[in-house]
Amino acid sequence: MRTGVWLIGARGNVAAVSVVGAKAVANGLTDTTGMVTAREPLSELDLPGVDELVFGGHDIRTQSITETARAASESGGVPPAETIDAVESELKAVDDRVETGTAINCGQAVGDLASGDATTDQTVAELVTAIGDDYAAFVADHDLDRLVVVNVASTEPPIDKPERYDTLEALETAIDNDDRKLPASVLYAYAALDSGHPYVNFTPSTGSNLGGLCELASERGVPHMGQDAKTGETLVKSALAPMFAGRNLRVLSWEGHNILGNTDGLVLEDDDNKAGKVQSKDGLLEEILGYETQSRVRIDYTPSLGDRKTAWDHIHFEGFLGTEMKLQFTWEGSDSALAAPLVLDLIRLIAHADEHGESGLQPQLASFFKSPLSYETHDLSRQLEQLRRYAHQYQ
Amino acid sequence: MRTGVWLIGARGNVAAVSVVGAKAVANGLTDTTGMVTAREPLSELDLPGVDELVFGGHDIRTQSITETARAASESGGVPPAETIDAVESELKAVDDRVETGTAINCGQAVGDLASGDATTDQTVAELVTAIGDDYAAFVADHDLDRLVVVNVASTEPPIDKPERYDTLEALETAIDNDDRKLPASVLYAYAALDSGHPYVNFTPSTGSNLGGLCELASERGVPHMGQDAKTGETLVKSALAPMFAGRNLRVLSWEGHNILGNTDGLVLEDDDNKAGKVQSKDGLLEEILGYETQSRVRIDYTPSLGDRKTAWDHIHFEGFLGTEMKLQFTWEGSDSALAAPLVLDLIRLIAHADEHGESGLQPQLASFFKSPLSYETHDLSRQLEQLRRYAHQYQ
Amino acid sequence: MRTGVWLIGARGNVAAVSVVGAKAVANGLTDTTGMVTAREPLSELDLPGVDELVFGGHDIRTQSITETARAASESGGVPPAETIDAVESELKAVDDRVETGTAINCGQAVGDLASGDATTDQTVAELVTAIGDDYAAFVADHDLDRLVVVNVASTEPPIDKPERYDTLEALETAIDNDDRKLPASVLYAYAALDSGHPYVNFTPSTGSNLGGLCELASERGVPHMGQDAKTGETLVKSALAPMFAGRNLRVLSWEGHNILGNTDGLVLEDDDNKAGKVQSKDGLLEEILGYETQSRVRIDYTPSLGDRKTAWDHIHFEGFLGTEMKLQFTWEGSDSALAAPLVLDLIRLIAHADEHGESGLQPQLASFFKSPLSYETHDLSRQLEQLRRYAHQYQ
Amino acid sequence: MRTGVWLIGARGNVAAVSVVGAKAVANGLTDTTGMVTAREPLSELDLPGVDELVFGGHDIRTQSITETARAASESGGVPPAETIDAVESELKAVDDRVETGTAINCGQAVGDLASGDATTDQTVAELVTAIGDDYAAFVADHDLDRLVVVNVASTEPPIDKPERYDTLEALETAIDNDDRKLPASVLYAYAALDSGHPYVNFTPSTGSNLGGLCELASERGVPHMGQDAKTGETLVKSALAPMFAGRNLRVLSWEGHNILGNTDGLVLEDDDNKAGKVQSKDGLLEEILGYETQSRVRIDYTPSLGDRKTAWDHIHFEGFLGTEMKLQFTWEGSDSALAAPLVLDLIRLIAHADEHGESGLQPQLASFFKSPLSYETHDLSRQLEQLRRYAHQYQ
Repeated sequence: MRTGVWLIGARGNVAAVSVVGAKAVANGLTDTTGMVTAREPLSELDLPGVDELVFGGHDIRTQSITETARAASESGGVPPAETIDAVESELKAVDDRVETGTAINCGQAVGDLASGDATTDQTVAELVTAIGDDYAAFVADHDLDRLVVVNVASTEPPIDKPERYDTLEALETAIDNDDRKLPASVLYAYAALDSGHPYVNFTPSTGSNLGGLCELASERGVPHMGQDAKTGETLVKSALAPMFAGRNLRVLSWEGHNILGNTDGLVLEDDDNKAGKVQSKDGLLEEILGYETQSRVRIDYTPSLGDRKTAWDHIHFEGFLGTEMKLQFTWEGSDSALAAPLVLDLIRLIAHADEHGESGLQPQLASFFKSPLSYETHDLSRQLEQLRRYAHQYQ
Repeated sequence: MRTGVWLIGARGNVAAVSVVGAKAVANGLTDTTGMVTAREPLSELDLPGVDELVFGGHDIRTQSITETARAASESGGVPPAETIDAVESELKAVDDRVETGTAINCGQAVGDLASGDATTDQTVAELVTAIGDDYAAFVADHDLDRLVVVNVASTEPPIDKPERYDTLEALETAIDNDDRKLPASVLYAYAALDSGHPYVNFTPSTGSNLGGLCELASERGVPHMGQDAKTGETLVKSALAPMFAGRNLRVLSWEGHNILGNTDGLVLEDDDNKAGKVQSKDGLLEEILGYETQSRVRIDYTPSLGDRKTAWDHIHFEGFLGTEMKLQFTWEGSDSALAAPLVLDLIRLIAHADEHGESGLQPQLASFFKSPLSYETHDLSRQLEQLRRYAHQYQ
Repeated sequence: MRTGVWLIGARGNVAAVSVVGAKAVANGLTDTTGMVTAREPLSELDLPGVDELVFGGHDIRTQSITETARAASESGGVPPAETIDAVESELKAVDDRVETGTAINCGQAVGDLASGDATTDQTVAELVTAIGDDYAAFVADHDLDRLVVVNVASTEPPIDKPERYDTLEALETAIDNDDRKLPASVLYAYAALDSGHPYVNFTPSTGSNLGGLCELASERGVPHMGQDAKTGETLVKSALAPMFAGRNLRVLSWEGHNILGNTDGLVLEDDDNKAGKVQSKDGLLEEILGYETQSRVRIDYTPSLGDRKTAWDHIHFEGFLGTEMKLQFTWEGSDSALAAPLVLDLIRLIAHADEHGESGLQPQLASFFKSPLSYETHDLSRQLEQLRRYAHQYQ
Repeated sequence: MRTGVWLIGARGNVAAVSVVGAKAVANGLTDTTGMVTAREPLSELDLPGVDELVFGGHDIRTQSITETARAASESGGVPPAETIDAVESELKAVDDRVETGTAINCGQAVGDLASGDATTDQTVAELVTAIGDDYAAFVADHDLDRLVVVNVASTEPPIDKPERYDTLEALETAIDNDDRKLPASVLYAYAALDSGHPYVNFTPSTGSNLGGLCELASERGVPHMGQDAKTGETLVKSALAPMFAGRNLRVLSWEGHNILGNTDGLVLEDDDNKAGKVQSKDGLLEEILGYETQSRVRIDYTPSLGDRKTAWDHIHFEGFLGTEMKLQFTWEGSDSALAAPLVLDLIRLIAHADEHGESGLQPQLASFFKSPLSYETHDLSRQLEQLRRYAHQYQ
């Protein structure tokens, strides 16, 4: 079984660190700390080996994966420089398999990253066909048994009235009519699902989160999941909020402030793109707590931090006899070090689902996302329990 | 059904705030925020009403419950002065039902709290009998259907070689032989279980945590549980540690520093008593994480804080590619405001267990304790799940 | 010597707490903690007694000072309810001396606070005359030897092209021509200085910070000072930044996030008004450090906090051998408890300056302000040294 | 002018990073960030160049300076590995000039670091002579015009009754009588001052802090200063405490908790040595605030942190109207990156003092120390002002 991985945004930070990490693990240069699939009970599933994955992808930049990895290493220490040195020729091989993609409707900030002509005079239908052709060529060239498509590109602005695309028919009509409101992430997802490739949306962009695409996935019998990987502040939030709920402590306000210095932060400085990010954090508290509370999430760009992200959360809550109390936390993480192992986990787990004929949304993967499309709960422990149960069922 | 509550340490902070809180809830002066039993699904159980509880207890101090409550109010704002005013006559009534207790083997710091003669020339067997007589008189005087005994007294030093008392026979022989190593908390627990009264140990003291007492509880068919209520830093720890485990992030060190200014803090300044407290926090991380990690919990007495406790925790962890990251939190809570509603919850829930013939240790109550005697897991979410399952089984 | 105090914004939080505090000090209900003038060497100056101050003022609200104080007490515990009770009749007396003011050009958010008609069809010149008449009547009614005018009203938006009013002639021409760009704070300051009343601008609003007003103050020989009291995060900043400079540690970024829940916070939610606030924090770091650094100050409205303000500052700095390090702090203060004693200090100190013929800007008061008009340094220690030297010169 | 530098503890962290740093600056591999003497007005003094310093020293370990530097680099990233590579041959040259020293009375923890026989059967007088001979040989071998002796060795336990050595006569009698209570740091200081070498005590150990040694320094006309470099938490404290004093805000408690993972931390785990460290932090708050306050400084060893030290300080204070407020900070620094540039500063500045005939204690250097021997104030700003005045006097 040869498993291919197609990374949308293959030259971005998350992709670069994922590929470096996969190669480092494959070569025994690092251990699997941070990978959920390396831990029991998931480690007992019959998953594709990290060393067996064949990477390729789309990007709109000409900067190579190695260059991105080196820049990340310098700005945040991840990956370590000696690790990049050790796997450089393998990165080069992956880079040679990166095709130029589209950034249609990704917003000005993402467009600015493009080298040359990311905008296009191709029709939407032509773009979809071209993407599908790239997938097919990769499968053929590398003699793959399965191709997993993963969106790790920079965040697009949210789209207006997504309900317009609630059915497959409406979506396909829009493609045929060259509806230029459709953003790149939707086109990549459409092409993947239509060709039967499992699809994971690691970002807050729309991706497969349209009624029409869910319908397509069901029709084709292909698994997909998203969206917006839960790596930092929101991860902590989803672990802590159930404590307040479980103890009947009333959260009066929950304020969060994130500062970060990587490309993600730069893109989020653009107000349109930030709207996409902030929106995807809504709802978590309300669902876990069972009531609405004052909540705000600020994201600011602080170049000196490089890839390190610091979040400060201030939780003001009330206990018995009207007593006001506080929990504050600061989280100092490396976004790409947190994200990369989850990319590898998701590739392995969605390939497993595909292998076992699990199609459509994959609720067992909910713990990986800020906005799990198979929405049941945001409570991290319950989500992890779902994942453990999934694993036990295959043992 | 009349439910009596016998508080060991009835004039301490936790007891005073619990009684004020119960009366305030009963009179509609405050809501039930902070009470787990006020929240679904527990709120659907047939529990004794907070307004139906009849309080009494033992103490070694002459300071009245009202005086303790007023001092707590002044030093930390809990309970509010106007609430104490409103229930003062009811507090007086409870205070009249407080008998002088024993502080045998409670350590110097606790002994110092005693007004006059808490040490004694009575034999251990005589003490046990006297305690049992106090319970019985209370039941008779107030025509109670059930008496729940709750230990909320200051922390005793841990006892040496508790395995000496691993069987009921050994324990009873020790009592008969006037073994003066037996601490007060054990005598109170023995007298309760022997008379068939459900028993809860809210503190880190030994209480019913002896093989001999577990045997006695089984023999008498009476429920009991403990020990050491999980109110502050450890509560947060048990919510956060599973996140690190679930994501396979390696905790390199977890350092905690608590500063607090109430009697509890003062008693803990005494090195013997602190040993009791620190010990009860051991093991939580190791069990949840699955490996040993550098960990330390400091507790210091800072009088200016009154009943407010602040904890700072610094968690140093490693993710993918050897990346070091950090989570720090500060918790600013009011110990008695956090503890009091749990006292009421435990009274109601152990009464429910007794009513339904559940005897021995009560694993569904594990989430309330730092060192649950029915040890299964320290993971807060799993413990809360156990509690929910218990509730569902009675619906 | 009878000293009058005219508070612009007399029914706002800062004014209310200042008046309650002055009365509490006068009646021996509280000590002088927080008052700089209560400490050596300032305490040795011949300053007007806190108990001798006669308060009056302007406001656009009908809510009484007592009502404001009670609301503040309920939302943040300052002033304590029993203190308000004890001085209530004195508050009432002050309230009777409050005249309806103008909120011209104070922005929508401030205008919304007005009860009824704060906008006006009076000309600017008429407004100035009316204000001056109110000052004069107060002096006459209370037989005052001196009147100090203090602006403690909510923040106005900054004005465009303040250099238009760089000369007294230009400013007076604007008044005569009914230039409706002139904001309320300027009119109050003009009327004060023109009548020879010492003036203090406690807020970020324009106040006396116009070339024309400085000229007027010199001409009339009257002292004035501002602007924007340094109470919280900026105070800490001005104490810490010199440490980095003195040790040649390079600040790479300094990010601040303030959350607060009082009227000030609500007004600052309005983007125009926030611009005024944020702007006044600029420049401090650059001046102290000697170079420009990445810096941002966020201010968000979090109603649950009431009058409590929490700031989180994250300072990323570089030391020897390119080593990156961090200092983070959280400041949890009560804005009005921090501001009120400084209002009393400034009244006493500017009255002292006036008594001793010190006219124009008062550099010895620089430590009180975020943007001292007599700009020399933002370094708190150097500013305090200036104040000590001023005091020593009168001993 | 050739300036020699004799480092007591030449193979420890602070020494190793200082030497690497000096060589890196000399070779233009790093800039002078973190060096106070690189900043105006000190940069205008005629100081010995960093590239002109000739290093040698004593140690009790056999581990080389390069090995120490590499271990530090691995555990905390300071100095960077590539910097060590670039100056390795120069480090080797310094290492060749390190003589075996004595660890007499340095406590068990320091003794444990010794390779082989650091304890001795030499008499104290013989030790002093041997040390002096080492100094003299170094001066002769390298044709030095001046030798500065700097104590950067691990902390010794404090000595009992230091007043025994209050006169030079008493001290010399003790040496002659082989008084084995005299700790190593005193012997090194005695030998330095007696031979006219300027001496700096960078550590909390006794060093030249004995009446007899101050007398000796005066007699010989040689400058000396100490003790205990102010690098981390105490530095911040001395910057912040004056803010509370200046604003008449009452500090109710100031609690500090330091966690660190380097050899220093390991040595401090030993209770005797910790007493030396904790003691040297006493008094700062009381002097700056003008009253006694509840204060505690915890230092714990957390190996995972390597050379990174994190401090959490919790300051509880009271403002106007009895309002309680809080300031908390966390400081995450690299001890050696903070200490090393100060070592270079002190060498240069004490050489300057010696050159200009300034003998005895050097008050202009107070800002560098937690316990400046020339005690005037702990207020950082005032200390820095003293340093600036010193510089201006030579311009």
